[in-house]
Amino acid sequence: MTEDTNKTPVLDHGYIKLIESWGSDERIIEAARQSTDKGFEGWGPKCGTSVDGVFDCQEQVLRADDSVWSRCPVHGDVKQRAGDEKLLRYLYENQHSTPFEFAGAVIEVQAPIFVFREWHRHRTQSYNEMSARYTPLPNLNYVPTVERLLLNSKTNKQAGVIKWSIELTEEAARYYLTDLQQMYDMQERMYQNALRAGVPKELARGHLPVGRYSRMRASANLRNWLGFLTLRMAPNAQWEIRQYALAVHKLLTPVFPRTMELFDKKGS
Amino acid sequence: MTEDTNKTPVLDHGYIKLIESWGSDERIIEAARQSTDKGFEGWGPKCGTSVDGVFDCQEQVLRADDSVWSRCPVHGDVKQRAGDEKLLRYLYENQHSTPFEFAGAVIEVQAPIFVFREWHRHRTQSYNEMSARYTPLPNLNYVPTVERLLLNSKTNKQAGVIKWSIELTEEAARYYLTDLQQMYDMQERMYQNALRAGVPKELARGHLPVGRYSRMRASANLRNWLGFLTLRMAPNAQWEIRQYALAVHKLLTPVFPRTMELFDKKGS
Amino acid sequence: MTEDTNKTPVLDHGYIKLIESWGSDERIIEAARQSTDKGFEGWGPKCGTSVDGVFDCQEQVLRADDSVWSRCPVHGDVKQRAGDEKLLRYLYENQHSTPFEFAGAVIEVQAPIFVFREWHRHRTQSYNEMSARYTPLPNLNYVPTVERLLLNSKTNKQAGVIKWSIELTEEAARYYLTDLQQMYDMQERMYQNALRAGVPKELARGHLPVGRYSRMRASANLRNWLGFLTLRMAPNAQWEIRQYALAVHKLLTPVFPRTMELFDKKGS
Amino acid sequence: MTEDTNKTPVLDHGYIKLIESWGSDERIIEAARQSTDKGFEGWGPKCGTSVDGVFDCQEQVLRADDSVWSRCPVHGDVKQRAGDEKLLRYLYENQHSTPFEFAGAVIEVQAPIFVFREWHRHRTQSYNEMSARYTPLPNLNYVPTVERLLLNSKTNKQAGVIKWSIELTEEAARYYLTDLQQMYDMQERMYQNALRAGVPKELARGHLPVGRYSRMRASANLRNWLGFLTLRMAPNAQWEIRQYALAVHKLLTPVFPRTMELFDKKGS
Repeated sequence: MTEDTNKTPVLDHGYIKLIESWGSDERIIEAARQSTDKGFEGWGPKCGTSVDGVFDCQEQVLRADDSVWSRCPVHGDVKQRAGDEKLLRYLYENQHSTPFEFAGAVIEVQAPIFVFREWHRHRTQSYNEMSARYTPLPNLNYVPTVERLLLNSKTNKQAGVIKWSIELTEEAARYYLTDLQQMYDMQERMYQNALRAGVPKELARGHLPVGRYSRMRASANLRNWLGFLTLRMAPNAQWEIRQYALAVHKLLTPVFPRTMELFDKKGS
Repeated sequence: MTEDTNKTPVLDHGYIKLIESWGSDERIIEAARQSTDKGFEGWGPKCGTSVDGVFDCQEQVLRADDSVWSRCPVHGDVKQRAGDEKLLRYLYENQHSTPFEFAGAVIEVQAPIFVFREWHRHRTQSYNEMSARYTPLPNLNYVPTVERLLLNSKTNKQAGVIKWSIELTEEAARYYLTDLQQMYDMQERMYQNALRAGVPKELARGHLPVGRYSRMRASANLRNWLGFLTLRMAPNAQWEIRQYALAVHKLLTPVFPRTMELFDKKGS
Repeated sequence: MTEDTNKTPVLDHGYIKLIESWGSDERIIEAARQSTDKGFEGWGPKCGTSVDGVFDCQEQVLRADDSVWSRCPVHGDVKQRAGDEKLLRYLYENQHSTPFEFAGAVIEVQAPIFVFREWHRHRTQSYNEMSARYTPLPNLNYVPTVERLLLNSKTNKQAGVIKWSIELTEEAARYYLTDLQQMYDMQERMYQNALRAGVPKELARGHLPVGRYSRMRASANLRNWLGFLTLRMAPNAQWEIRQYALAVHKLLTPVFPRTMELFDKKGS
Repeated sequence: MTEDTNKTPVLDHGYIKLIESWGSDERIIEAARQSTDKGFEGWGPKCGTSVDGVFDCQEQVLRADDSVWSRCPVHGDVKQRAGDEKLLRYLYENQHSTPFEFAGAVIEVQAPIFVFREWHRHRTQSYNEMSARYTPLPNLNYVPTVERLLLNSKTNKQAGVIKWSIELTEEAARYYLTDLQQMYDMQERMYQNALRAGVPKELARGHLPVGRYSRMRASANLRNWLGFLTLRMAPNAQWEIRQYALAVHKLLTPVFPRTMELFDKKGS
């Protein structure tokens, strides 16, 4: 299927896929410029007008007097004027957020239910999700790796082990994963039996695990996607949803390169 | 515990409880009257002004000419003027919705995860829910009754049985419920073992069922509670969340009696 | 300016212009089909596959047995299958609203401030508006026509004349419009004088009228644009904002033809 | 009128008034504790349990070893444990915002239209405002003081004077204010004449100034009131709306003392 090449795999059976985006870094500038009755004026330093139009400057030169000059293919060196990236940075850093609502993206996501439970707390996104009321859920269940299991045993106390636990060994982790797979298998068998016996779909799912995969489309404007990334790429977010947030981040970067660069700088 | 007396039981282990409400039918009128620079004027017919003020009329009398008169303790019988219930009905029936945002309620809910999954689609409510990342979930799981299981086998095709199923008998239903309880028990044993073995809480929950109970507080203004009730008391809503919606409806009725009466009339 | 050809004039100095749209009738179906794990399947009856693909059927024929057949250019007559327009209609009529959040539009609007005051009550849209704090407002002011002035004198009592008024004659209307234009001129002269005298822009606007034009971009998803149209195309909406709503309606119709057709049918 | 004593005057003819609040600092803690299956435990240090219950400690003593002890009326001095203010601070500082949605306030505001235009950009509040369509607007108009006029002439360039202006003198400011009052008077006369001549209310307001006062009720949860205060108490907010934000801040402080203290600390 050609479509699959656009899917970014996440976890063992999950993925995200960009369905559509709207707006752009330029549109964000245009929206912001409504307040001063102007439009988008251009990125980067320009090297003067000519009959051939305006050219982007190449290569910057720092002079002895600290002024920045750029090499212009038409006019020779020109003193550097800041372009609209300056306004974009100003908007971003001073929380003028509404212009970033004039761009957005629709993303398709396949993820475990416990990831969706966290995702759906973001009330500014639009969701349409597969429903176990209407269609039997496919038999896909999240099995973490041994490395992932051992990750939390020392850091992140709040989301970590209970007080009266022993320390998780690699052997115990492997043992747990075998148990987990067996449990998932039993759950699936019971699910199929119940469905065949005439138990309504909306009830037959009662014992299905929160580790089972579901699928949805999510739509949000860029302001709200950035809010999602801020919370879900943070170190205290659960590792699993963080993998999705990182994948969304990677997917949005080429679509809104200048805004995403500002987002990245802020965090560092 | 004295608090428990305020809990309305729902399903086998769930409940809802009113934590707090704000606003009132009167406050809704006051908010609406902002537009015409007036305030709340009173419910029901009034019997004219006097040096002693305005009195509520008692006892209504229908005259031969079809006009309604009321007995007034000061002025004798007066022709009946409609009170602010007329404005409230006008607002409600003509979808002037913002005045109904000037009242609201906070409710505590214990319900199965699959109910919460539907509930959280209402993005205009505020939620704070128990988190399996931070605390082990109590061992409470939803087991439907035999009657409930047999309910869907004939009606509501969309949410009902799969195509290649046989018809669910009472005996098969009982058999399924025994299986379900055993499955829940196995899931709990595995959960406790994993926690003790040092599996982080946020992962040890992976195989836990969507039928397990969780708990949250939900806050919304009255406009949005009514939107919730409209969708979740509807016949095509899943029976389980409908029980919660009916309980919320019952709980809000004495708090906002006139608005809830209008809500009830609209449906019939 | 080539851009101007895309502007739809509204009132005496206003306009609306489509900046961008996203999604489509098909995308709405795709979003809805997430719930049953399927995608968009096609509009209208199809007349079978061939090496040349699928063709839309032309001309419908009602047989004696009440079945509907369509003439297919490839295979001859085929029995009619309902296409995805049936699902779209179902979604629309049963208030399954979230799929309609998977499409949207950004629109630029020039309108009098009193129109914007009503528009901005729609809290689900994103706005960026010209600001009199940052840039002097252009001297454009709304002057109604004589016909418009006489429109309300008999209908719509609530928004109409005050109690102790006389009936507006055509002559009095003309007289009023002369006064209005003179008032606008005086206001502009005082504005320019104040600005030149060094009164800060954010204060010099204090006496400017709510009939002065401003400009903004507004972004919303299709669900919320339809909500806007429902309220603002209604007969009890002020005539001026109704002209804008009608223009938005006309502008969205070719972009989302099937959804807009359902919207139109609902109203009639 | 006794009600008036609750109004806080703002600007020359404006006010704000607390209509109602819900929730409390304690309720915010309770909402947050849902996640760990606990409730509110108490503020400040406690001095141990006894048959008579838990007592608040009085008077703190700093020992030589830097530990803080408190005098307890029952048990003598006890080492200080942090109370729930520690959790409240953690929530506030780490942007765990949803618990702050479990409290809120309804406020009545009288302010110039240009202030309301900025206020209504906060889309998470509920509004009901006086409407010039339905009732003639009272003749109240904002006239700044001379001091206010001179405030911006040197600072805040963006919202300040236009480029080709001269510097505003005190004399010119007084002159401008006389002009402004005359203009307001002319506007009112024309308004009354138009209304009497039979011009519909919704049109007769066209020339009325954005400096005219209107009135509304606004409702929001505490999270969103704090967001409002952050933006509107900021130095780059217009001085006029800042006066309203400062008044809202003062009004909320005794209602949610601990949360407001955290808000104040953050800014300094």
